[in-house]
Amino acid sequence: MSLFSSADHIIEIVDNLPNSSIAMMESARERQSQLTKPPGSLGKLEDIAVWLAGWQGVAKPQINNGQCLVFAGNHGVVAQGVSPFPAEVTAQMVMNFEAGGAAINQLCREAGLSLTVTPLQLDVPTGDISEGMAMTPDEVIAAMNAGADALNDSCDYLVVGEMGIGNTTTAAALSMGRFGGDAGRWVGPGTGLDDEGVAYKAKIVDRAFARHGRLNDNPVSLMAHYGGRELAAIAGAVLAARMRSIPVMLDGFISSAAASALTAGDRLSALDHCEISHMSSEPGHLRLAVSLRKQPIIDLGMRLGEGSGAATATLLVRAALATHNGMATFAEAGVSNA
Amino acid sequence: MSLFSSADHIIEIVDNLPNSSIAMMESARERQSQLTKPPGSLGKLEDIAVWLAGWQGVAKPQINNGQCLVFAGNHGVVAQGVSPFPAEVTAQMVMNFEAGGAAINQLCREAGLSLTVTPLQLDVPTGDISEGMAMTPDEVIAAMNAGADALNDSCDYLVVGEMGIGNTTTAAALSMGRFGGDAGRWVGPGTGLDDEGVAYKAKIVDRAFARHGRLNDNPVSLMAHYGGRELAAIAGAVLAARMRSIPVMLDGFISSAAASALTAGDRLSALDHCEISHMSSEPGHLRLAVSLRKQPIIDLGMRLGEGSGAATATLLVRAALATHNGMATFAEAGVSNA
Repeated sequence: MSLFSSADHIIEIVDNLPNSSIAMMESARERQSQLTKPPGSLGKLEDIAVWLAGWQGVAKPQINNGQCLVFAGNHGVVAQGVSPFPAEVTAQMVMNFEAGGAAINQLCREAGLSLTVTPLQLDVPTGDISEGMAMTPDEVIAAMNAGADALNDSCDYLVVGEMGIGNTTTAAALSMGRFGGDAGRWVGPGTGLDDEGVAYKAKIVDRAFARHGRLNDNPVSLMAHYGGRELAAIAGAVLAARMRSIPVMLDGFISSAAASALTAGDRLSALDHCEISHMSSEPGHLRLAVSLRKQPIIDLGMRLGEGSGAATATLLVRAALATHNGMATFAEAGVSNA
Repeated sequence: MSLFSSADHIIEIVDNLPNSSIAMMESARERQSQLTKPPGSLGKLEDIAVWLAGWQGVAKPQINNGQCLVFAGNHGVVAQGVSPFPAEVTAQMVMNFEAGGAAINQLCREAGLSLTVTPLQLDVPTGDISEGMAMTPDEVIAAMNAGADALNDSCDYLVVGEMGIGNTTTAAALSMGRFGGDAGRWVGPGTGLDDEGVAYKAKIVDRAFARHGRLNDNPVSLMAHYGGRELAAIAGAVLAARMRSIPVMLDGFISSAAASALTAGDRLSALDHCEISHMSSEPGHLRLAVSLRKQPIIDLGMRLGEGSGAATATLLVRAALATHNGMATFAEAGVSNA
């Protein structure tokens, strides 16, 4: 049976989500204060351990079944010439994922994450959003269910990523549809447009926005107007994870834009279980992070997608858990406290 | 036989250091441009792979024998009340390192680094720098040789760290002695001073500077005036690594201050083989990074020392090498290039 049945059902789910365990966050903070180090001296590593403790509902959180979900989709708007790469690269990169040759394969191995790649009807691009709808609401719900279905039963930590030639255009348009503002501030070079290409891409996003406008009521409506399939699948996976209190590490601009659809109706708390892993060098990501009130953990000038930034940041989550769970307390080590 | 024999010998070494292989950096950049991703899209991960390629002198660098050296020392200036922790904590933490209970133990395991802890005459604190010399030049050279001796024959990547109650005071004074400026801009809370404590610590550093002044001629002289033993050992290890073209990941404020002594005489290139792993929340570190013209890789608000930030950043070095060495090229994967 599918997890999501209709646009109204999704709103009902978002309005009744489980929250983080405050008691377990307090237990984890208390433990941090006893470990053999000056209080607070591990900085964000301490915050990350406390975040996981709250969502996993234990004082000593662990990642035993960390999963990276990568969704791939194609975009009708590519016909407008918004990407330097041809659309067939989406399917070629899916083959590269399956053969183990992409960045995300290496990074998942380093970070101890299982990788699940889900191509979504690559031979059926979504509609060109500069000329009409991306998808029907039923198609959106099907893609969201595909996202939810990709989540393993044993998953205790989720990384999401994507592949889709043209999807920085889709993400920029979706972000503008969700939060408003100027296209010029949501659009960037993507896989490598020059200044002229970026200006042209902004025109296409402006054209899409002129057609569809602000849509701050329902995730399904937002996705149906702006797309794309892999973004809807990410939204479905992120929401399904929240229903099971699984902490989520978002990747960069496109993953964050996809997840932001769940905050339609100003429901920012829908993403309380998510951290943004890294600040993408795609310029719209800073604006999106501010809109979602989240501070990315690292800033390495990455802009690859595939979940690559989130898998990289997962290495720091591993460091956070290793210190949180493995360090001796002052009492255990016989070290004098301040 | 000891590596370093005199202050003049050290200057002679610094003036005749090996450099990075430009040819191998170019080979590594060329490889990055062929991998299945938009050019430049792995950001700093690409730069890190190229940095290692240059120093290891191979197009596909690896860390097979990464080593973390932690040096511990005690500081006479602690008698002035500059730390909330008592001096005996230095020895207690060395025992904690040996028992495997400290942050650096967990982080070295995560990062695949061997850990070597070297306590330096903990029962003989250096002189109180607010009242006189820290060490004799011979003591400095002995500590630098201890640092060099700690480096394994097989080491191919080095992380340096330290433990020493009072050593943020030493590092602030040393930085002021090397680069000048106001004590108030080099001093911070260290392990947890309040504002009043920080202001008092700045007075002590001012008193030390009034006695010893700017010393921009020789690393040994700088260390003899300002200390401490573990800082001199770090400088010795960093210099010994450079003589063998081993890339070095510096930790935070104290490690960076220690390494900065090697740049005496405006020899900034002495640290060309070093990266600063993280931006410490100890405020003097930002100033030091700017003075050394290096941009820390991560900024997680850490301020623990022990090499903890450098070991954490090593996880990102692992990610950089995994992608650099493991990804398929466009040709290998049959993916269309832009």
